[in-house]
Amino acid sequence: MHFQTHHRSSKCPARTGLLTLPHGPVATPAFMPVGTRAAVKAMTMPEIESLGFEMVLSNTYHLFLRPGDEIIRNLGGLHKFMNWNRPILTDSGGYQVFSLADLRRLTEEGVEFASPIDGARHFISPEKAIEIQQNLGADIIMAFDECTPYPCEIEQARKSMELTLRWADRSRNAWTRREDQSLFGIVQGSVYPELRAECARRLVDMDLPGYAIGGLSVGEPKDLMYLGLEAAIAELPVDKPRYAMGVGTPLDFLESVRRGVDLFDCVMPTRVARNGRAYVRGGQRNIRNARYKTDPRPLDETCPCETCRNYSRAYLRHVNQIGEILAARLLTLHNLHFFQQCILDIRKAVETDSLDELDTRWKQEAQEFDRESETES
Amino acid sequence: MHFQTHHRSSKCPARTGLLTLPHGPVATPAFMPVGTRAAVKAMTMPEIESLGFEMVLSNTYHLFLRPGDEIIRNLGGLHKFMNWNRPILTDSGGYQVFSLADLRRLTEEGVEFASPIDGARHFISPEKAIEIQQNLGADIIMAFDECTPYPCEIEQARKSMELTLRWADRSRNAWTRREDQSLFGIVQGSVYPELRAECARRLVDMDLPGYAIGGLSVGEPKDLMYLGLEAAIAELPVDKPRYAMGVGTPLDFLESVRRGVDLFDCVMPTRVARNGRAYVRGGQRNIRNARYKTDPRPLDETCPCETCRNYSRAYLRHVNQIGEILAARLLTLHNLHFFQQCILDIRKAVETDSLDELDTRWKQEAQEFDRESETES
Repeated sequence: MHFQTHHRSSKCPARTGLLTLPHGPVATPAFMPVGTRAAVKAMTMPEIESLGFEMVLSNTYHLFLRPGDEIIRNLGGLHKFMNWNRPILTDSGGYQVFSLADLRRLTEEGVEFASPIDGARHFISPEKAIEIQQNLGADIIMAFDECTPYPCEIEQARKSMELTLRWADRSRNAWTRREDQSLFGIVQGSVYPELRAECARRLVDMDLPGYAIGGLSVGEPKDLMYLGLEAAIAELPVDKPRYAMGVGTPLDFLESVRRGVDLFDCVMPTRVARNGRAYVRGGQRNIRNARYKTDPRPLDETCPCETCRNYSRAYLRHVNQIGEILAARLLTLHNLHFFQQCILDIRKAVETDSLDELDTRWKQEAQEFDRESETES
Repeated sequence: MHFQTHHRSSKCPARTGLLTLPHGPVATPAFMPVGTRAAVKAMTMPEIESLGFEMVLSNTYHLFLRPGDEIIRNLGGLHKFMNWNRPILTDSGGYQVFSLADLRRLTEEGVEFASPIDGARHFISPEKAIEIQQNLGADIIMAFDECTPYPCEIEQARKSMELTLRWADRSRNAWTRREDQSLFGIVQGSVYPELRAECARRLVDMDLPGYAIGGLSVGEPKDLMYLGLEAAIAELPVDKPRYAMGVGTPLDFLESVRRGVDLFDCVMPTRVARNGRAYVRGGQRNIRNARYKTDPRPLDETCPCETCRNYSRAYLRHVNQIGEILAARLLTLHNLHFFQQCILDIRKAVETDSLDELDTRWKQEAQEFDRESETES
């Protein structure tokens, strides 16, 4: 892995860069669509490629349970399995074990849990998480961590952070496929800037290829999220990539890039699409709204995506209402295009030192959207 | 509308031809994918186009109920609404009114029924069916008919056929958009060849642009279906297109083309795909079968479709098992590609007078597939 920063803002820690991985380059800042179970919901990978995405995320926990990492390894690895020859990042399974698994038992060694699919008992340790990820073969793999919920007392957050640091060290020791997989450590520490800073410092001592900030967007107020992010990034080396896990909305991207983040992932653009919601400049449209029943306009009149070029709001409402798969496809495609466009706008704003102007423009668009919605409804 | 036959078999009534419609040409024999509610399930229309289909079918009954034919007309018609600029055929709603609607009341005038969506009372007469289809704007529209169930006594079948003939005449009188829509009559008569022949003769007296054979594939034995088809086609003019409604499987296409049919539609390739079933040479694979769990081969090793070029059986089984939309997409794409390939094989066999050889080959493939399945399971 090679990471080169291109342009650094004169006003803030924002930067553009190029991450070069075994399966190709990733221009940063970058948004990774989420392909939880080796598929980006409603999409094919050629569609993801033609939308301009250069890296996707896939979930270790889900693939471990089904179809199993050894099956994927024997079929030639995750890239071949899912028909995607660009970079992949796999998470470590930590977050999912703590949010989705049943009958969890946490020890120093790792986490024992029951599969929600069939109740079978499983055990994931840092060593096991790395073994699974080495079987999957992603370009970037993540250390196994404990993700603390919000709210969380500082004593608990410190205890958990210490465990995450010991697990990061064990993850690093288990990591053998160093020639074509890069291990990122995960900064935890809840909403406590002093813990975030300490965790970051101690991870940097492990000299890993990259660093993620985890445990964000778990229900904490935005200002606390950004304080934690700032405290962590202040300790991270400028020449290594930084990834804000599970973040977020376009405005979150902008605020995070301002603080020096390079990589993002979020299920929102794909998830809300399946519920009939479309991101447009300034807000979201719920295509189920009766006002769209006869509306001949595209979702967003300024959007050049395939959905907006070819389908009316009335048609999108119709296919959503009758439960056609096409509704999920067309809205997902639009939402992912919208997210990619936001990232491109941010990249350009970093390069022209105009993040403030972009911020102002987006906030104006939000006001206009709200006014329009009030007029229409 | 213009219909030109190209090659006529020396051995049987089979022929190839070209149907020229306001939205373009349709080489025949042709299979029309079914876009019931202005969408071919799991697909986009550009995908249908790139699979080589030149005409699709859409359902009057469904579109009348939702979103409503006037909404579609005001949005510029069905072609624009669904993003398909090639020919469309709409059925008349007769079949659906008799198979899907609640609380039906049949009179000489038409059919009153309750919408299964909201219970609202509706009335469709021949005049109303034509009005709806004129609002939708398909290239080919169908006369309103009564579709008799199977089994059906001959007295009932005759009574129903007489009603269908009176409704055909009323449909023709209501049909005003003659410059860009062609009306097809529908031959009924259940499994009684003498009724089929009489119905065909009396429809031909109405001098319509084309003729369909309806009430097939409703549960009757195949040999009776083909006797009815033969009796009808013997009375139909050779220079007008013939459409076997709701037929069928690839072997049905072959048998029907031998008897002089030009057009087909069927929901099977799209419907079974959503249940995990793939058509392959000689049979169907159920991708849910545990034997595919680690199978690196494509669905069909001889198939050049996108699904077979890019995905293993193991992956298709995985995405089906976890309920991903992608499973429905990839299997539907493969099945439609398979149906189109069968039609192309048939067209070529008509042109080279080798339908018997094609029949023999397909039957051999079916035997081989059965043997292979027995060996594997």
